[in-house]
Amino acid sequence: MIPRYSRPEMVAVWDAQTRFRIWFEIEAYACDALAEIGVIPKSSAEAIWAKAGNIEFDVARIDEIEKVTKHDVIAFLTHLAEFIGPDARFVHQGMTSSDVLDTCLSVQLARASDILIADVEALLAALKRRAFEHKLTPSIGRSHGIHAEPVTFGLKLAQAHAEFARAKERLVNARKEIATCAISGAVGTFANIDPRVEAHVAQKLGLSVEPASTQIIPRDRHAMFFATLGVIASSLERLAIEIRHLQRTEVLEAEEFFSEGQKGSSAMPHKRNPVLTENITGLARLIRGMALPAMENVALWHERDISHSSVERMIAPDATITLDFALNRMTGVIDKLLVYPANMQKNLDRLGGLIHSQRVLLALTQKGVSREDAYAYVQRNAMPVWRGEGDFLTLLKADPDVGKALSAAELEQLFDLGYHLKNIDFIFKRVFGHA
Amino acid sequence: MIPRYSRPEMVAVWDAQTRFRIWFEIEAYACDALAEIGVIPKSSAEAIWAKAGNIEFDVARIDEIEKVTKHDVIAFLTHLAEFIGPDARFVHQGMTSSDVLDTCLSVQLARASDILIADVEALLAALKRRAFEHKLTPSIGRSHGIHAEPVTFGLKLAQAHAEFARAKERLVNARKEIATCAISGAVGTFANIDPRVEAHVAQKLGLSVEPASTQIIPRDRHAMFFATLGVIASSLERLAIEIRHLQRTEVLEAEEFFSEGQKGSSAMPHKRNPVLTENITGLARLIRGMALPAMENVALWHERDISHSSVERMIAPDATITLDFALNRMTGVIDKLLVYPANMQKNLDRLGGLIHSQRVLLALTQKGVSREDAYAYVQRNAMPVWRGEGDFLTLLKADPDVGKALSAAELEQLFDLGYHLKNIDFIFKRVFGHA
Amino acid sequence: MIPRYSRPEMVAVWDAQTRFRIWFEIEAYACDALAEIGVIPKSSAEAIWAKAGNIEFDVARIDEIEKVTKHDVIAFLTHLAEFIGPDARFVHQGMTSSDVLDTCLSVQLARASDILIADVEALLAALKRRAFEHKLTPSIGRSHGIHAEPVTFGLKLAQAHAEFARAKERLVNARKEIATCAISGAVGTFANIDPRVEAHVAQKLGLSVEPASTQIIPRDRHAMFFATLGVIASSLERLAIEIRHLQRTEVLEAEEFFSEGQKGSSAMPHKRNPVLTENITGLARLIRGMALPAMENVALWHERDISHSSVERMIAPDATITLDFALNRMTGVIDKLLVYPANMQKNLDRLGGLIHSQRVLLALTQKGVSREDAYAYVQRNAMPVWRGEGDFLTLLKADPDVGKALSAAELEQLFDLGYHLKNIDFIFKRVFGHA
Amino acid sequence: MIPRYSRPEMVAVWDAQTRFRIWFEIEAYACDALAEIGVIPKSSAEAIWAKAGNIEFDVARIDEIEKVTKHDVIAFLTHLAEFIGPDARFVHQGMTSSDVLDTCLSVQLARASDILIADVEALLAALKRRAFEHKLTPSIGRSHGIHAEPVTFGLKLAQAHAEFARAKERLVNARKEIATCAISGAVGTFANIDPRVEAHVAQKLGLSVEPASTQIIPRDRHAMFFATLGVIASSLERLAIEIRHLQRTEVLEAEEFFSEGQKGSSAMPHKRNPVLTENITGLARLIRGMALPAMENVALWHERDISHSSVERMIAPDATITLDFALNRMTGVIDKLLVYPANMQKNLDRLGGLIHSQRVLLALTQKGVSREDAYAYVQRNAMPVWRGEGDFLTLLKADPDVGKALSAAELEQLFDLGYHLKNIDFIFKRVFGHA
Repeated sequence: MIPRYSRPEMVAVWDAQTRFRIWFEIEAYACDALAEIGVIPKSSAEAIWAKAGNIEFDVARIDEIEKVTKHDVIAFLTHLAEFIGPDARFVHQGMTSSDVLDTCLSVQLARASDILIADVEALLAALKRRAFEHKLTPSIGRSHGIHAEPVTFGLKLAQAHAEFARAKERLVNARKEIATCAISGAVGTFANIDPRVEAHVAQKLGLSVEPASTQIIPRDRHAMFFATLGVIASSLERLAIEIRHLQRTEVLEAEEFFSEGQKGSSAMPHKRNPVLTENITGLARLIRGMALPAMENVALWHERDISHSSVERMIAPDATITLDFALNRMTGVIDKLLVYPANMQKNLDRLGGLIHSQRVLLALTQKGVSREDAYAYVQRNAMPVWRGEGDFLTLLKADPDVGKALSAAELEQLFDLGYHLKNIDFIFKRVFGHA
Repeated sequence: MIPRYSRPEMVAVWDAQTRFRIWFEIEAYACDALAEIGVIPKSSAEAIWAKAGNIEFDVARIDEIEKVTKHDVIAFLTHLAEFIGPDARFVHQGMTSSDVLDTCLSVQLARASDILIADVEALLAALKRRAFEHKLTPSIGRSHGIHAEPVTFGLKLAQAHAEFARAKERLVNARKEIATCAISGAVGTFANIDPRVEAHVAQKLGLSVEPASTQIIPRDRHAMFFATLGVIASSLERLAIEIRHLQRTEVLEAEEFFSEGQKGSSAMPHKRNPVLTENITGLARLIRGMALPAMENVALWHERDISHSSVERMIAPDATITLDFALNRMTGVIDKLLVYPANMQKNLDRLGGLIHSQRVLLALTQKGVSREDAYAYVQRNAMPVWRGEGDFLTLLKADPDVGKALSAAELEQLFDLGYHLKNIDFIFKRVFGHA
Repeated sequence: MIPRYSRPEMVAVWDAQTRFRIWFEIEAYACDALAEIGVIPKSSAEAIWAKAGNIEFDVARIDEIEKVTKHDVIAFLTHLAEFIGPDARFVHQGMTSSDVLDTCLSVQLARASDILIADVEALLAALKRRAFEHKLTPSIGRSHGIHAEPVTFGLKLAQAHAEFARAKERLVNARKEIATCAISGAVGTFANIDPRVEAHVAQKLGLSVEPASTQIIPRDRHAMFFATLGVIASSLERLAIEIRHLQRTEVLEAEEFFSEGQKGSSAMPHKRNPVLTENITGLARLIRGMALPAMENVALWHERDISHSSVERMIAPDATITLDFALNRMTGVIDKLLVYPANMQKNLDRLGGLIHSQRVLLALTQKGVSREDAYAYVQRNAMPVWRGEGDFLTLLKADPDVGKALSAAELEQLFDLGYHLKNIDFIFKRVFGHA
Repeated sequence: MIPRYSRPEMVAVWDAQTRFRIWFEIEAYACDALAEIGVIPKSSAEAIWAKAGNIEFDVARIDEIEKVTKHDVIAFLTHLAEFIGPDARFVHQGMTSSDVLDTCLSVQLARASDILIADVEALLAALKRRAFEHKLTPSIGRSHGIHAEPVTFGLKLAQAHAEFARAKERLVNARKEIATCAISGAVGTFANIDPRVEAHVAQKLGLSVEPASTQIIPRDRHAMFFATLGVIASSLERLAIEIRHLQRTEVLEAEEFFSEGQKGSSAMPHKRNPVLTENITGLARLIRGMALPAMENVALWHERDISHSSVERMIAPDATITLDFALNRMTGVIDKLLVYPANMQKNLDRLGGLIHSQRVLLALTQKGVSREDAYAYVQRNAMPVWRGEGDFLTLLKADPDVGKALSAAELEQLFDLGYHLKNIDFIFKRVFGHA
């Protein structure tokens, strides 16, 4: 995580104070349950909340203790005891560090998920608004970077909307994967801790109960979570690259907003570069790359080893903070995107009518020409146009084989933009529920 | 895919004949719908089924045509026309190659998913059977590879069961991701093809309809699919490594079945190696590695480019065939696993009672000793035992600080294996619904 | 590996017959050395060559034996004994399977490296030829996809040449990494085999001696090898993407050769798509993805486990065959690339002179204007041109602040293409040694 | 990068002050060269050094300016001008931001390489010292986690030494890859900057000259650099896993040093866990995962896009800081590793003599028994011993087939540990140059 690519709300999820606060809540709720079932005195459980329920933890002090114990949870408990006094001996009864660490990570990842889901919703809203704005703004569709047939700019955004609607659903699933609580003791047997403690803490923290933990919550859950972020980052990359293409000098159908005072280049004052979407492209690579270590984390040894910990200390904040940032940046890009319908029309016209080649092909087959012959007739008239030698409609009219099947008037009718847009409403209804 | 790591049922999903058969069905069902809405003659749609509904496609011939056209779908259509004759001109009307290719891939991936789901179910059955068989076979739990506290061998398998139950659910989700049909034409606008064709083909092939395709089905779906396989492979790796650990010479709590005539080593006739689970470990690396190219495939250019194609030609068969093989291999390993309860007991006893250290710690705090002091008392008696110098219970009895809080009789009661197994039934109920 | 993306020469490196031949040679050379130092009879060593030196191995028969032994080298040795008779008992004396397997893999990877090095040399030759052909063909340089300043098309190819010259050097290094021989017995101690055997086999096979093997050649070597292939594949991707950009409809500065009979699209007969470079883009993703499993293979357990084997059975052929194919495909693309200098010039002129903005900026500072002011003067005149509102030179001439520093004549001199090409020869000399 | 896994020396390479200092030097050396060739006044070049050669840059102020310009180099130059005054207009003449950014990154990566090389040297020294200390400490060699034949503990460390000697050589190569300087202007043509400037700056900063840059130094260099770090991290993982295995309760041949006051577990006071090597295992996953985004960075668009930047802002510090930390941690682990020769001997004896099975096999073949028969005789006597039913030597003596070939006395001579260690000196000579 670096400040340049982070937003405060997500950063806060991962700061030390938040973490210690969650640790405290896990321990304190566990004490409530332990008191309820008679393992510790109720007065002790109450004292814990009373004496430490509102304190600011001294992060530096905890770090200092950890230097000796080389164990972070023990350092925290030692610090906590400094506030609570003798009742502190009832804290963490029958629990193991991972009960605290893993349940805390679940809370943090669940909160991060909530932010990410809200991010995607904001992006969906921006995409929807701009999609309807440009529902019928004609624009050339391209396959292989080559002009194919007409689409609309709004359709492109509707497609992105459908993709990010899936992203949202995947995030909801991913959140479920990791929103579990385990307080099952040193090897997951509840030997020293009653399962009712787990149930109580889970309920208080809005988590479900882990059905079978070892010392830890199994890491296939986290692997699935981070893999999901990788896929969503890849969807962001797709949209980013679309915009970068559209902003190319030769295309210039859309452009990232360029603010007052902004400078595109230290050397070339004329530059306006798609730097935000290029940035998102790079961030996607980073987030994607974090899925692999997360998957390698699954195969911990026996009831746990701690090799996953260093990985998660880095990728849990990094992946969520970076994705949060990238999603927000993309929402801003979409919201303020400069769209140039005139340039879209210019590009549509660039190929001298070739974009209607399929329709001519189909019309020929409808008139009884074999598919193979029809393909040959159309292709032989298309190639000169491709090379800039002539206009497609004119050439077709002059082709005797074509002429046998289609009159000049019939040919002209085939060169109609509206024909391509007739089902846009239908698609919008599928994507948005209305058109 | 290499024969050594493949099973015929999954290989069949990916062979050329299967693929051409699915292509044919897509085209023929599309013709049915086109005939129904009056775009092509009903007699032509019927002729297509009649003339090619039962043929074996000539794969070599199609390859030959492709050498000229450099386009696989056109080669197939040309070959198909050789069977169907003049009616062939109505085939593929208004469709684009990707309509066929992508919908076919959906069918293949859905079939592959069905096999994988059945594989996981077989593994779950094996895990369940062996879990109940060893529900109460005591065994040492280990964190960091170091003895921690007792578990049972059945609990380990129950944990694996819970993990693969999640794997199954993820596969069901992954199947939904990719089981969609797109027949929307060259750039996804349905310009030359009525959306009812798509709906008909989707329904016939058991797919849902892609809400917003470009020329292709968006690749975030496939990325999610392959990422899911990577996570499941990582779960396999985890179980494989558990077994490899248990088979170590020094541990020998379980062993892969070793068949008559099998040779463990060309040099050392005494060897019995966990080669199946080592193999699965390697296969997991391969499957996981395929998630990355799948994610990189998402950001295709504009309405599509074809860079995803080479990736999918390799990873779609490779990932599904390899995972199918690995799942089956694992089911065999679990089914026939040799389990050695006597060795488990021997290992449990190895640490001279240290595995009860936490219980002593908790008992001390219950008697009013502070957590910090209790930890110190226990640790100072544990360290000599760790070095092989004495027995834990004996040392504790001799410790005056411990003696102030706990009598010899009280200490003895803390060294009880049954104490650790009392909640095994509870966990089994959570995992299996019954104990 | 799939036939579509493979070439026979590289495929042959990996076929079963080649592998068994290399195994035989390792065993037979080892026997020569064993005979030389008196461990086995010289007549036996000679008999081995005499009876099996020229045979075709029966791959099916070896597979059959392996089904029983579940061990490939033992199966091979059993089969070999069928040819050699009683002297066969001297084969493999004191060796372990990995001595054969790993040394064989070294031979195969070294041969694969030789092919790949030759591939890169062919690509370098094509790049050099076309680079000189277009050394002074002006073309717009782009940063962020936005027109920047002029370059030449030959310069782009010279840059690619410099990159692939590095690729060649990396391949030479990678070859050195893996071209080692280990015949050190079951755990690398030479307990049952004299080190002179290793030295002899290494020398005969053109390998160096592994200084410290365990049972196997350490896998950091192979990880480095496959990581190197991943980097080279990424360089291929870069060049592929450059060509794909240049072939875009709106840019069309270059185009993949389009052969007679080729069809670009089943639906749109006008299409000419950069399918070869798109294909290379996808292949690069695959090869890159194989670097990860290769790195995960490094951390084998103790003196070896066999988890690396399944990975290498797949990626060793797949990565080398795919990279060989991709390199060759790229050489073909470069060799036959259609280059359109007229379109390059058209694109150069597209921005109305903005590409000279930096030169104007520098000229202003040379005349005493501060950098900040100069930047502001130039940017305010560039923005209207960017929007298509006017010509850059005209606007600059009309700007009073600019006019104070630069006369109309001075401004005109700044709009000179030749100014940008004056150091092309210098760069060519650095890259090629001559211009 | 997180403080927990970082060391100050490497962190300093990446802090803002260091970066601005290097930027300044690049600009100031460039001015020297520009003055030398007469493009700017010598007095200006001198003024730049005089006025800003020793200042502390105001990082917050630069950040503030960047908020407006959205361009980091321009922000820096603006800030610099605040110190330098009018002469500042001669700074950055004809250069582009990437000239500064990329050359600076080269300096930083070269410095990072120097630290990493020193790290590896320290690790090599520790490995060598401990290797010689335990050159003849017998220990069981294991393949597949199963006892194979004897090695020495020193041999394991010698093998690691050989591996890290390769790591050092790879780092030297990787450093060469990235230690280049490019000052070639906006698109690499030297249009506005004389190549002598580049040569001068390169020489001053200890870099070589980039033969053909675009706007940037090509990213295949950086991909190779980070891939190399991934391979080295994987070697660290291998050594870490070896130690983790050796520390397992059942094995306990070695142990990480456990300091006074250290606590292994919050719940179980008896625990001594290999947490340092587990940590290194996780860090290796992280570093390895960064190779992929680095490879994806290679294929930038045309003369550059900026998508690599966000990736490098994160992985350049993260990968080097993390690897530096992991290497140092490993050196500490090796230096202080507790080694238990008595336990090694106990483990060696555990298999009842089975570790001599190969030697018996070879002796039988030397006496004329066929390899297949010899294998069968040995295996049938080994299997009961494996199951704990008897002693290997006793069983062999009682086997009539074995007896026909080998007398009891001959058999006894085969059970000799020294036999396995006779070539250890030979291997040490290969690795260290002396034994």
